[in-house]
Amino acid sequence: MASVIECIPNFSEGRDKAVIQALRDVAGAVPGAALLDCSSDESHNRSVLTLAGSPKGIAEAAFRLCAAASEKIDMTKHSGEHPRMGATDVIPFVPLQGVSMRDCVELSKEVAARIWDELRIPSFLYEESASSPARKNLADVRKGQFEGMPQKLLLPEWAPDFGGRAAHPTAGVTAVGARFPLVAYNVNLDTPDVSVAKAIAKAIRGSSGGFRHCKAIGVMLEGRNVAQVSMNMVNFEGTPLYRAHEAIRAEARRWGVGIIGSEIVGLAPAKALTDCAAYYLQLEDFSYGRQVLEARLLEME
Amino acid sequence: MASVIECIPNFSEGRDKAVIQALRDVAGAVPGAALLDCSSDESHNRSVLTLAGSPKGIAEAAFRLCAAASEKIDMTKHSGEHPRMGATDVIPFVPLQGVSMRDCVELSKEVAARIWDELRIPSFLYEESASSPARKNLADVRKGQFEGMPQKLLLPEWAPDFGGRAAHPTAGVTAVGARFPLVAYNVNLDTPDVSVAKAIAKAIRGSSGGFRHCKAIGVMLEGRNVAQVSMNMVNFEGTPLYRAHEAIRAEARRWGVGIIGSEIVGLAPAKALTDCAAYYLQLEDFSYGRQVLEARLLEME
Repeated sequence: MASVIECIPNFSEGRDKAVIQALRDVAGAVPGAALLDCSSDESHNRSVLTLAGSPKGIAEAAFRLCAAASEKIDMTKHSGEHPRMGATDVIPFVPLQGVSMRDCVELSKEVAARIWDELRIPSFLYEESASSPARKNLADVRKGQFEGMPQKLLLPEWAPDFGGRAAHPTAGVTAVGARFPLVAYNVNLDTPDVSVAKAIAKAIRGSSGGFRHCKAIGVMLEGRNVAQVSMNMVNFEGTPLYRAHEAIRAEARRWGVGIIGSEIVGLAPAKALTDCAAYYLQLEDFSYGRQVLEARLLEME
Repeated sequence: MASVIECIPNFSEGRDKAVIQALRDVAGAVPGAALLDCSSDESHNRSVLTLAGSPKGIAEAAFRLCAAASEKIDMTKHSGEHPRMGATDVIPFVPLQGVSMRDCVELSKEVAARIWDELRIPSFLYEESASSPARKNLADVRKGQFEGMPQKLLLPEWAPDFGGRAAHPTAGVTAVGARFPLVAYNVNLDTPDVSVAKAIAKAIRGSSGGFRHCKAIGVMLEGRNVAQVSMNMVNFEGTPLYRAHEAIRAEARRWGVGIIGSEIVGLAPAKALTDCAAYYLQLEDFSYGRQVLEARLLEME
């Protein structure tokens, strides 16, 4: 079985087509890594690339992308709705097949070390790679954003995991870490009242008493006049998609509101969906690893 | 993208462990083919192997297995509940990736020709490989079974597609063909009354007015005192699993009966299940090929 790691680096440029294309070109030219997806958001002014490949190929691609971003993106001129602290804002590594979470943690440290050695960009390790519980959550690490980093790095508790106590003047600071596969899952409600979506999001997200591995906010889909519960399912084995879906359905009933649709944004592991099929079809003794053809085919490689 | 074909040969031996092991050993020794599954049924006296591999590897494995079965299985001494006409009863080829149905049809003809040339076993082409509509359905081809084949081959309309008009004395006749992936899907009812399962099976199977790509019978799970609708979903894109499931639920209501569980027997393509997740989660604009990670990983090979 071949070792495959996924990497989903986020870059602080979502508008300049030439810069985005340059990043795609870099990603497409690394042996042992393949670019699976690239999505850019103009209002966020941010691009998210999805790559998969061998540990060596992925480590090389992550470094080269970070180098290209530091050449082409000037954070002193960046604005956008999404919080950010660096030209390469965050580099997550996800174990897909034939590698452990521990392997990905080691890889994240190697890449972070090289980013400091060769590019002089300091970094924080986050999620499974975090050096302390206070650094696990990306939102805490990124707090203060690019503009606040010079001061933050001087605080006793915020020395970078790699690099000196000064942000790179134009590329800022990068977060690097290993994590579980994340599924971006949104549920649309048959109401234009965003307060309903916000109340449901609060009920189901882990931070306010809901499901441990679910992050959720309520937003408005302006074009459709539809309120949406927008989620990041950060561990779909611990909190499956169907459980969030059914909880939203139950909460929405209080307002006489129903679910009109849902969406997966970007890529999702097949198991996140076959687990839902197993629930709704009431499958007995179903084994993803033994019974799903594609799982067996990938094992054969 | 590598070309991958699945092959699910059925052999008329489900009791003799030494013979079954010999077949597994043959399957495991062919370069370019991998044995994914082997399930034997004593009452059927039949074993079903699942292999996947390159067109060349799979063609070689199918031939070698047929040769081994003709050496080790004597159909004049065979009895079992399942209809059968040969030591190697049927060899289906299924396009999985990077190959067309047409490629699998061609492959089935090459293998059938070699089985006649080197083993002197005649064969019928069935399903997508069939030379006439009357030979498409395996049950029609196999009618008369091993004991009736010598007479059947002499009928004007039943000349074999490959080979002479005499069955092999101990290995009988083999059916060879290309087909879509098949999912064996069973639904368990909260009743011990098999007549309810039989009536539901009749309502949903294509042959009696139900779903075109669904074959269904009602059976009793003796150990559990539970009636079961047992199905072969022969084209899960044309008739998805969830549609059969929901139709069974609706039909069962007439008798005040519910669904207590279901099962996938053996292997299933991920898409057969992610299609169900998409239905129950009400996914909008979901694309298996673009959004499922494993589909993208297999494409990378």
